Amino acid sequence: MKKERLILVTNDDGYTAKGFRAAIEVARTFGRVVAVAPERTQSGMSQAITMYNPLFLRKQHEEVGVVIYSFSGTPVDCVKMAFDYLLADEQVDLVISGINHGSNAAVNVLYSGTMGAAIEGSFYGCPSIGLSLTDHDLDADFNAALHYGREIVGRVLEGNLTGSLCLNVNFPVATIDQIRGIRVCRQTDGYWKEEFYHHEDPRGREYFWLTGEFINREPEAEDTDEWALANNYVAIVPVQVDLTDYRRKKELEQLF
Amino acid sequence: MKKERLILVTNDDGYTAKGFRAAIEVARTFGRVVAVAPERTQSGMSQAITMYNPLFLRKQHEEVGVVIYSFSGTPVDCVKMAFDYLLADEQVDLVISGINHGSNAAVNVLYSGTMGAAIEGSFYGCPSIGLSLTDHDLDADFNAALHYGREIVGRVLEGNLTGSLCLNVNFPVATIDQIRGIRVCRQTDGYWKEEFYHHEDPRGREYFWLTGEFINREPEAEDTDEWALANNYVAIVPVQVDLTDYRRKKELEQLF
Repeated sequence: MKKERLILVTNDDGYTAKGFRAAIEVARTFGRVVAVAPERTQSGMSQAITMYNPLFLRKQHEEVGVVIYSFSGTPVDCVKMAFDYLLADEQVDLVISGINHGSNAAVNVLYSGTMGAAIEGSFYGCPSIGLSLTDHDLDADFNAALHYGREIVGRVLEGNLTGSLCLNVNFPVATIDQIRGIRVCRQTDGYWKEEFYHHEDPRGREYFWLTGEFINREPEAEDTDEWALANNYVAIVPVQVDLTDYRRKKELEQLF
Repeated sequence: MKKERLILVTNDDGYTAKGFRAAIEVARTFGRVVAVAPERTQSGMSQAITMYNPLFLRKQHEEVGVVIYSFSGTPVDCVKMAFDYLLADEQVDLVISGINHGSNAAVNVLYSGTMGAAIEGSFYGCPSIGLSLTDHDLDADFNAALHYGREIVGRVLEGNLTGSLCLNVNFPVATIDQIRGIRVCRQTDGYWKEEFYHHEDPRGREYFWLTGEFINREPEAEDTDEWALANNYVAIVPVQVDLTDYRRKKELEQLF
C-alpha cells in the first residue's frame, strides 16, 4: 500500500487567516496535513529568523488528517520548528505556504514572509510552493485560488521533478471562469516607491508609517509574472537562491 | 570644485554597535555621512519591512560631516526612511551597511538584515556595500575590516561601475598582516542545520530557542566566499535579486 503523503502548511498572515484555511484545504486533498503558522501576522517578514527570543508552540486544533499549531516566531521559524522538531523523524513530501492575502509577484518575493517560508522549505530538500492571491482583503474570495492551487500542487506531485524546487505562485483576482490559464513566468523587474505617511501621535510625538506603490519597470514584457496577473493568468515563477551576480563577477575581478 | 560625496550608513546590530561606528569611520574617509540605524538589534531580519506599526525617528548625534539617527524599524525601513524622507532631495552616492558582527557569507545573505539593507539600497539605484566581520563578539576587533573596508569602498567609488551594484563583503577574523588579499567569489552552496534548544521557563511553559550549525555543501570549492574566508581572504560576492530559476523555468513550461 502506498504511504500517505505528509504535507506541511504554513503562512505569514497567522494561523487564524482565511487564506491559511484555504491552503489546508488544498493540502488535505493530497495527504496528511501538519500546519504550523505564526501566532500573529508576519507580513513583510521576508526570510527573517528569531535569534534573541524564546519561542512558544501551541496546538490549536486537531482532527482526522489535520493538526494545526501556532508558533510565536516568524514564518521561517515555523518551517524550522516543523522540520527540525515536530517532524524531525518523518519525511515531509511538500511544503505549502499561504494562501497569502496579497500579491507576492515581482520584487515582493524578497519582502514576503510567505515566500521566505517557501524558500526555507526548499532548503530542507522538500518541494515548496508559495501561494498568494492578489487581494489583501481579510475576507477575500479564495475559490479560484483553491481550484488552481489544487491543480498546480497535483501536477507538481505527479510531475516527478527532481532536485530542489521552490515555486512562487500568484493568483489574479478573478473567478475560475475568468482565469485564462497558468503561465510559467520570470520575476518582473520593478521596485517600491515609498512614501512615509507621517503625523503626530496623541502625545505629540511624530510617527512614520510606510506606504508605497509598486513601479513595474517592464509592463509590456509578456514573460513576467506581473503581466500574467494583469491578464488574468495564474503566474508561476520557479525560485532559486544563489544571489551571485555572475555577470558583474567578471567585471569586479578586473577591479580587485 | 567637486561636490562632496554623500554616504548613507546603516546596519542591523543597532546604532550603538561597535561595528556601526567602524562603518561610519570607513564612510567619512570618502564624504559626508548620514547614518540611520535600527534603535535595537535587528539581526536575522532579512529584507523585512514594518507594515503594521508606526515608526519613530530620533537624532542621536551630530558633528561636522556626520549625523546619526536611530529608527525604530528594520534595517530595510532605515534605508527607506533615508531615501524617501531624510535624503529625498539629495543624491546619495553610496550605501554602506555594517560592519556586521558575524558572517553574512553563503546562504546567510538571505537571513541577514545587513544585506537586506544593502540590497534595498541598490533598489534606489545607488551602489551598496554590505560589510561583515566573521566575529559575533560585541567587542570584536574591527581594525583589519576598517583597513580593507576603506580599500574596497575606494576602488568601487573610483571604478566607474555603472548600473545597479550590490556587494556582500565578508572579512575573516585576522590581522591586516594575516589577510592574504581580496577575492571576488560566488555564494557558497550550503544550509543551516538547526536544533531547537528547549526547556521550561520559570512559569513551567516549554520554550524553544533557535540554534544551529552551517553546513557547507562544497568546502573544497575555491571560488566560494566560505573558502576565501577559511583561507584568510576578504570575500566579495556581487549580489543580484532576480530569483527566477531559469533552468527550471524551461522544465516547468513542459509541465504547465
